[in-house]
Amino acid sequence: LHTRLPAVGTTVFTRMSALAAQHGAVNLGQGFPDFDCEPALIDAVSDAMRAGNNQYPLMTGAAPLREAIAAKIASRYGHDYDAASEITVTAGATQALTTAILCCVHPGDEVIVIEPAYDSYLPAIALAGGVPVLVAMEVDERGYSVPWDKLAAAVSPQTRLIIINTPHNPTGTIVRVADLEKLADIVRGTQIVLLSDEVYEHMVYDGVPHASLSRHAELAARAFIVSSFGKTYHVTGWKVGYVAAPSTMTAEFRKVHQYNVFTVNTPMQHGLASYMADPQPYLQLPAFYQRKRDLFRAGLAGSRFELLPADGTYFQCVKYSAISQDSEAQFAEWLTTELKVAAIPVSAFYAQGKESGIVRFCFAKRDETLNLALARLRTI
Amino acid sequence: LHTRLPAVGTTVFTRMSALAAQHGAVNLGQGFPDFDCEPALIDAVSDAMRAGNNQYPLMTGAAPLREAIAAKIASRYGHDYDAASEITVTAGATQALTTAILCCVHPGDEVIVIEPAYDSYLPAIALAGGVPVLVAMEVDERGYSVPWDKLAAAVSPQTRLIIINTPHNPTGTIVRVADLEKLADIVRGTQIVLLSDEVYEHMVYDGVPHASLSRHAELAARAFIVSSFGKTYHVTGWKVGYVAAPSTMTAEFRKVHQYNVFTVNTPMQHGLASYMADPQPYLQLPAFYQRKRDLFRAGLAGSRFELLPADGTYFQCVKYSAISQDSEAQFAEWLTTELKVAAIPVSAFYAQGKESGIVRFCFAKRDETLNLALARLRTI
Ligand SMILES: CSCCC(=O)C(=O)O
Ligand SMILES: CSCCC(=O)C(=O)O
Repeated sequence: LHTRLPAVGTTVFTRMSALAAQHGAVNLGQGFPDFDCEPALIDAVSDAMRAGNNQYPLMTGAAPLREAIAAKIASRYGHDYDAASEITVTAGATQALTTAILCCVHPGDEVIVIEPAYDSYLPAIALAGGVPVLVAMEVDERGYSVPWDKLAAAVSPQTRLIIINTPHNPTGTIVRVADLEKLADIVRGTQIVLLSDEVYEHMVYDGVPHASLSRHAELAARAFIVSSFGKTYHVTGWKVGYVAAPSTMTAEFRKVHQYNVFTVNTPMQHGLASYMADPQPYLQLPAFYQRKRDLFRAGLAGSRFELLPADGTYFQCVKYSAISQDSEAQFAEWLTTELKVAAIPVSAFYAQGKESGIVRFCFAKRDETLNLALARLRTI
Repeated sequence: LHTRLPAVGTTVFTRMSALAAQHGAVNLGQGFPDFDCEPALIDAVSDAMRAGNNQYPLMTGAAPLREAIAAKIASRYGHDYDAASEITVTAGATQALTTAILCCVHPGDEVIVIEPAYDSYLPAIALAGGVPVLVAMEVDERGYSVPWDKLAAAVSPQTRLIIINTPHNPTGTIVRVADLEKLADIVRGTQIVLLSDEVYEHMVYDGVPHASLSRHAELAARAFIVSSFGKTYHVTGWKVGYVAAPSTMTAEFRKVHQYNVFTVNTPMQHGLASYMADPQPYLQLPAFYQRKRDLFRAGLAGSRFELLPADGTYFQCVKYSAISQDSEAQFAEWLTTELKVAAIPVSAFYAQGKESGIVRFCFAKRDETLNLALARLRTI
């Protein structure tokens, strides 16, 4: 079979999780919690099934869930989306991202991607026939940052789409609310569409507000904004996310969505809708994960790992140049198989595998898991 | 936003279901049961959630479910698929179909589609940049049939894929096991890939066996075979399906799958795997739906609707030329809004909206629903 995606292998997450399982390593690689969601959320889904919510929901998503999403965005970011025509429930954030790309990128269109980049962006662009234009983040002792000037310079008449990701996976960097104006300056007067991956929206630390593009009316007017319940509610396997976008953009999104997955799991949608009535679970999330971040950072302080800033997401990047000159893939493999702590090489998030001597750990784990990993990491 | 799918509106199923709801019509349009699944299946999913199966499953699908699927295919159709490398769990059959098309159709490739055709095939081909080559089914007083000679004549050096659908939606036609040899004659010696939509595999009536392409080794060696649990277990809203294909084809499928949805709902996968241990539910399905088909046909016998054969699926097509000369869309709308029984115009399954004076009813409904609809349909 002649391949459509010649550059694609199995995702680094799948490979590292398999390696971790094979070697009995503590898995701080793939991003998912090793603890469970609240029983109330499970009960809400069970109740939805028992109440007979087992047939096709609306193609756009179950109405109560779309309404709960619109209410949450309004209260958090002050932007009013119409639940009927501007919110679409998706089978996880990956499906939302790929569908958004497929619905607006035409063969030959340029898509600006900031590297390191979540690994689904480039294959989705390739499927659409788009041309990626890569802009590398700067990285120095203060960590990674978006080079807005280089982003501006990358824009051409062929630019169809710019992909933004904040909080940023894998680096843990965040866009500041003040930076949104820089992005607005770049796209003002153009037809460029924005795709904003905000799946870690509730994991921004130290009291800093999340710079959702929906906070900025000009940006929101041209943005697909993607989020995920899997990250927020500790149910990465439930595969429910959403996209918020102006109605004209949503209409195009839904044309592809309806022929990609058609609809999304009904019981999960109803369970999530009723669970979302209480905002406490996501309001408490920053404090919950900030404590874990701080525990993990404290455990590595004074070790030979150099901690990069971790302003958002549930990832901590570390520089290991004091320990090894190995490539990131080799070092991550060594960590997994020898030290028995799995990590993800950041080079896997670069199209050309750029080496920075940095690996990513996930701290969305029980304290005892983190402590076990730390004890091992401190031995080197 | 410059559209990628100019020909696409909202699916006919969504539109007719909305119209039915608005007019309080009995909804025999969109294909889904108005009764619930067995409580044991719901309990199996609840148990899976309570047991902590809430994080990412394997990208390929939960192992117990892939194994249960492979065992079912082996026992039903005598073909051994390797559960690890040849079965992939999908977010419903639509996602399986679209992903299969996206992974093998290159821009400019021809895809042969038999019309009338399920409405997701053509948009998925358009997204891939493929060129549909349409072959119309023949229809006479004995109903619809696949014109194998015309299918053979439609093959060109550019043909990448042929899409087969049996039992066939919307017509209820089935391919016979003996016909598989005709398909083999057509593709033998070519590089053509087959995509077989078999979501109604357990709904073949009158004791006739389902002609799964997996029964025919030569065909199975080049086929993506798609099925769905939503149809089989009365849970259309759960959105779990699968694709079975030789390992080289599965490898390409998974490249797209992992960047389209990445994975599929974990609790549903585990619940379905444990429920599948007992084959009785799907073994009883033909008798269950055959009785409903016969009830529905008996109810229309002697009416001015002319019944077409219904050998498979849960759909009954009827000719209404004795009642009206309206277009199918108009007649279906009149049925829905005036007679208060929703139907689907078969013209919606033709790229050019071909008119045959035929509409489709879904008989996957409680007897009382069918009887209410029949009472109304018999008044004209
Ligand atoms: C979709 S699997 C990977 C989970 C994740 O987002 C990550 O580890 O970066
Ligand atoms: C995916 S919604 C339509 C359900 C169905 O398969 C049909 O009605 O034909």
